[in-house]
This record gives sequence, C-alpha cells and structure tokens, in this order.
Amino acid sequence: MVQKLNTAERAELASTLPGWSMVEGEDAIRRDFTFEDFVQAWGFMAKVALLAQAQDHHPDWRNVWNKVQITLSTHDAGGLSARDVKLARAIDAL
Amino acid sequence: MVQKLNTAERAELASTLPGWSMVEGEDAIRRDFTFEDFVQAWGFMAKVALLAQAQDHHPDWRNVWNKVQITLSTHDAGGLSARDVKLARAIDAL
Repeated sequence: MVQKLNTAERAELASTLPGWSMVEGEDAIRRDFTFEDFVQAWGFMAKVALLAQAQDHHPDWRNVWNKVQITLSTHDAGGLSARDVKLARAIDAL
Repeated sequence: MVQKLNTAERAELASTLPGWSMVEGEDAIRRDFTFEDFVQAWGFMAKVALLAQAQDHHPDWRNVWNKVQITLSTHDAGGLSARDVKLARAIDAL
C-alpha cells in the first residue's frame, strides 16, 4: 500500500518542487506549462507519457494548444504520495 | 473568419456525431473515450494529435490513465464551427 506524504515530507514540497502548487480542495499538486505551440506542447507530453509509463504512475492532465496542465495525486494512497513527488521531479528535469 | 454553425447544421449533429454531446453552458461538443489502459489511450491520443495538427485545429482534452475526454469548439468563431465537426468526424473514424 502506498503511504500518503507525512507532514515533514509535505513541508519539503515548496523547496523541492517550487513550480508546483497544491490544488484547492484536493490532496494533489499541479503545474501549468506553456509552450510555443502545439507541436512543442505535444513533444513535452510525449516525454511525460514515457516517464509516466516507466514509473507506472499516470497524471491527470489537460492540453489546450500550447498549454499543458498536469495534476498529480495517488489514487491508491487517497492523496499525495512519494510517487507524485518522483514523477513531478522527473517532469521538472525534462 | 470562421462562422459558427447555423441552426440547420446544429440539427444535423445528433445524427452525424451521435457519440458527441453538447457541453453544458458552452457552445462546444464533447466525447469521452475509455481504453484498456494508458498505452492504448496514449496511442489514440497520438493519432488525434496528428489529425489536429494536420487540420490546424486543436482539442481541449484531458487524459487520466485509460480515459480521454475531448472537447471541441472554435475559438475564432466563438463557438462550434464546421472545423469542430470535421475534426470530430476524423476522430470518430480512427
């Protein structure tokens, strides 16, 4: 069973994942990305898809032309877990 | 300038695009797709991305693991246009 992040781990999020913010009313983190156009946005999404599949952890994400919004949470944990932090860090490293 | 669909064209939608429904409060159409898993959903999305790029008309879409929700509307027309119908039909033909 995947564990939810504890208080200390949550306190670290602001420094380890500065680009991400908590989603209001949900135990999830979110980041908005803006690209030059759809081709650039899609190229990014293709990389994220490979990361997600490799980590067997998938985002809730939305795309409108040059914009990609990624929301991460762990269904099995009922909220944020280390799997979300891992995927968010991998996405940030792209 | 892209024109919004007229009344006669809208009346045809139910028969030409039976899988799509109007979005409440928006002049847009939407369809939900469910696949076996993320790989299948992503494969479908990759095809839709190529169609969208070829038609220079892009969806507002969301994916969560095996689910893909596609919303179509034409920004330049301020609502549904023939471009949405064309893309929706191409997606249905996949």
